[in-house]
Amino acid sequence: MKSLLKDTFELAEQLLQLEQDAAPMPRHDVGALGDQLSLELPQDGATQGEVFAKMSAVLNATPQTSSPRFLNQLFGGRQNYAAAADMLTAMLNVSMYTYKAAGAMILIEQQLVQHMAKFAGFTNAEGVICPGGSMANFVGMMMGRDRANHDFREHGSDGRQHTFYVSTQSHYSVDKAAAMLGVGRANVRKIKCDDNGSMNVDDLANAIEVDITNDCVPCAVIATCGTTVLGAFDPLKQIASVCRKHNIWLHADGAFGGPALLHRQHRNLLDGIEYADSLSWDAHKVMGVPLTCSMLLCQHQGKLSKSLQQDAEYLFQVDHEDLNPGLRSIQCGRRNDAFKLWSAWQALGDNGWHDRLEQQFKLAKFAADYIEQSADFELCQRPEYLTICFKVYGVDATELCDQLHANGEALIGHADVRGEQVMRLVVVNPEISTSDLQRLFENIVAKQRNIISA
Amino acid sequence: MKSLLKDTFELAEQLLQLEQDAAPMPRHDVGALGDQLSLELPQDGATQGEVFAKMSAVLNATPQTSSPRFLNQLFGGRQNYAAAADMLTAMLNVSMYTYKAAGAMILIEQQLVQHMAKFAGFTNAEGVICPGGSMANFVGMMMGRDRANHDFREHGSDGRQHTFYVSTQSHYSVDKAAAMLGVGRANVRKIKCDDNGSMNVDDLANAIEVDITNDCVPCAVIATCGTTVLGAFDPLKQIASVCRKHNIWLHADGAFGGPALLHRQHRNLLDGIEYADSLSWDAHKVMGVPLTCSMLLCQHQGKLSKSLQQDAEYLFQVDHEDLNPGLRSIQCGRRNDAFKLWSAWQALGDNGWHDRLEQQFKLAKFAADYIEQSADFELCQRPEYLTICFKVYGVDATELCDQLHANGEALIGHADVRGEQVMRLVVVNPEISTSDLQRLFENIVAKQRNIISA
Repeated sequence: MKSLLKDTFELAEQLLQLEQDAAPMPRHDVGALGDQLSLELPQDGATQGEVFAKMSAVLNATPQTSSPRFLNQLFGGRQNYAAAADMLTAMLNVSMYTYKAAGAMILIEQQLVQHMAKFAGFTNAEGVICPGGSMANFVGMMMGRDRANHDFREHGSDGRQHTFYVSTQSHYSVDKAAAMLGVGRANVRKIKCDDNGSMNVDDLANAIEVDITNDCVPCAVIATCGTTVLGAFDPLKQIASVCRKHNIWLHADGAFGGPALLHRQHRNLLDGIEYADSLSWDAHKVMGVPLTCSMLLCQHQGKLSKSLQQDAEYLFQVDHEDLNPGLRSIQCGRRNDAFKLWSAWQALGDNGWHDRLEQQFKLAKFAADYIEQSADFELCQRPEYLTICFKVYGVDATELCDQLHANGEALIGHADVRGEQVMRLVVVNPEISTSDLQRLFENIVAKQRNIISA
Repeated sequence: MKSLLKDTFELAEQLLQLEQDAAPMPRHDVGALGDQLSLELPQDGATQGEVFAKMSAVLNATPQTSSPRFLNQLFGGRQNYAAAADMLTAMLNVSMYTYKAAGAMILIEQQLVQHMAKFAGFTNAEGVICPGGSMANFVGMMMGRDRANHDFREHGSDGRQHTFYVSTQSHYSVDKAAAMLGVGRANVRKIKCDDNGSMNVDDLANAIEVDITNDCVPCAVIATCGTTVLGAFDPLKQIASVCRKHNIWLHADGAFGGPALLHRQHRNLLDGIEYADSLSWDAHKVMGVPLTCSMLLCQHQGKLSKSLQQDAEYLFQVDHEDLNPGLRSIQCGRRNDAFKLWSAWQALGDNGWHDRLEQQFKLAKFAADYIEQSADFELCQRPEYLTICFKVYGVDATELCDQLHANGEALIGHADVRGEQVMRLVVVNPEISTSDLQRLFENIVAKQRNIISA
């Protein structure tokens, strides 16, 4: 392994170089790429040199998500300590079900749960890191389902219609989870949004009342904290009061927006979060921790076990159940996604996260200002958070994105805003400079001119 | 990042040293450990030196799962190329939903799907890597549920009793998944096992017929390929013929036993696997790939989408759906668990995996022979696979395990076999030597003497 470590280290340095150059990331034709790399799995093994040569070729054909040209996803950039710790995680390779098997790493996850819960104002918190925000939402929704109908876990549905409530701007994982949970996609009520993209609470209250009248069983409201496209936040306080009235579980999907709680002023985007029953909060998006690192917090100790605990006499043999988080997880064997976030937190502290977010908000403001002042662009709305949606006059957003991708000037996406396809820029990498953004806008204008004159 | 890489590399080497010495891994008292490491998350950040010093202290308080003393879990040891590639994965940090975001890594996952499917005899295969074997089983069971009742995904249950079938020796994830899927834990029929731990097929056939008579909706049979305790294999051919008769989905849980397909003789443990509809196959257990790496294979292209596809206009914008596996996953953002397995396969080839398994089987045989020949032990049964269950005369297995753990001589577990707690040794680390095993047995006998004379 020692000589492999050396080669690994060299490849890692090579990757850093690639990112630093901010070289374009041209789109590889799939067929050509497959041929060129010869990715087939062989019958006979290869030498160390051959294997690392292949690995190096693959690295070079993989988008560099820490490049300032990667602006396509809700993640991008790298928190360096988190990446370093995650490399060690691959070597340590513990499974996060028991203290016996994972030792100090279990205590580290507990620290994260309790510390992050404080930022959410959860006083009696428990939590578990899930494999992605979709699965964290799934767990929150499951707890809601199981509280609304105590028999569901044991016996499944009794045939009554069970329902979830979410805004039209919500993440698609809610529909997927409704299907997985046996509630059904058709029973996810999509509540209309205001123009800025937040859920209309009057409509929510009406929908719930109609359902109750019709003998449905409302399981949970899923409030979105940071929508995928506009970065909008649902009004938690008002939603919580509707939920309280009807005793319905409130899950807050803060996969994208949860980290705003770490910013001393902008944490008000999540005003009322302390009334939620559960919260998803991804560290692998805005916080730059390698994928995946999705914290699921619950306001009420014991609820996770109530939905997920399963005796396994061969596994849970020693220690208090607090020390065996396998009892509160959808997974059995579970990767250690705690060490990387903990290490980053040691390096940054609460204050460092604030500063990092401050820089992200500044970049988003720069981008929005630039767009507003440009004659070629129209800003859809001032961003509350870290996504900026805008129109480029005279060209189709889809075509523009494809052209920017073709020779690797930028990976950027488009989205539907009020019925129109517009450009969607995500500014989550705090290492990006304003001149990187300026170059992007210049590239876009150049493409716009080309397309129009073609 | 460059200077962090250097420190990371040094910590990784330090870890290798720890493992090589095969030093005991004493059990740390939880309270003392927490105090000693001061794991709290600080308000202010720390210097690089301080952070790495803390990380180093944590590493030293984490069980070394590659030590020859770690014999407690269905994983242990390290496939070096997989570990190296996983370190690079932390740096690369792509998300496996689209070709646009993950490039060559998508093609690598496809290669794994098709190559592993060949070993299972699946001719029209699709697949996706899931976050652990429990979730892979969940997906297999979901496809069964959705085929048995086409309305379930959209509308949830109609109130009829939906059922799953599994042996009494099955993994606990099946019950958990039944709860998650809205089918209900009480509707998991536990079919009795023969003495060797495999499902009794006559009992299965009867249970299904009774349920059909009672208007239940059988969703899937989950056959266990490699039970957690005895390493037993359910008779796939006979189970498949029962399933065919009633048109019921057959999911094979090969989280533990799937890799036996790579051994040219012992692949017969899974005779009939080509009749299964889906298969879970963990590479992070027997194959030594860092956690998690759980392949879910499906015999029928299109079924994964049928249960899981969800439009997300902001995400799935370019390329054929084959290249966007996010459409076939329970997750949205998904860690790249493909590169590590692919890299290991490049180094070993099919033949290297055979040889690796051959060594594991040899070690298991050595352990079983030793136990049989010892006057202090009684072998519960000859192992078919890589777990060895045995009694130690005159002592309680629980107490023995605790004592071995206390000062770190070995991490080993106990289990219920035919109503009695016995020792359960897992031999999945091919780097273990026969003298490591001999030392273990000598340690056990010494403890036995102590306990008896106390």
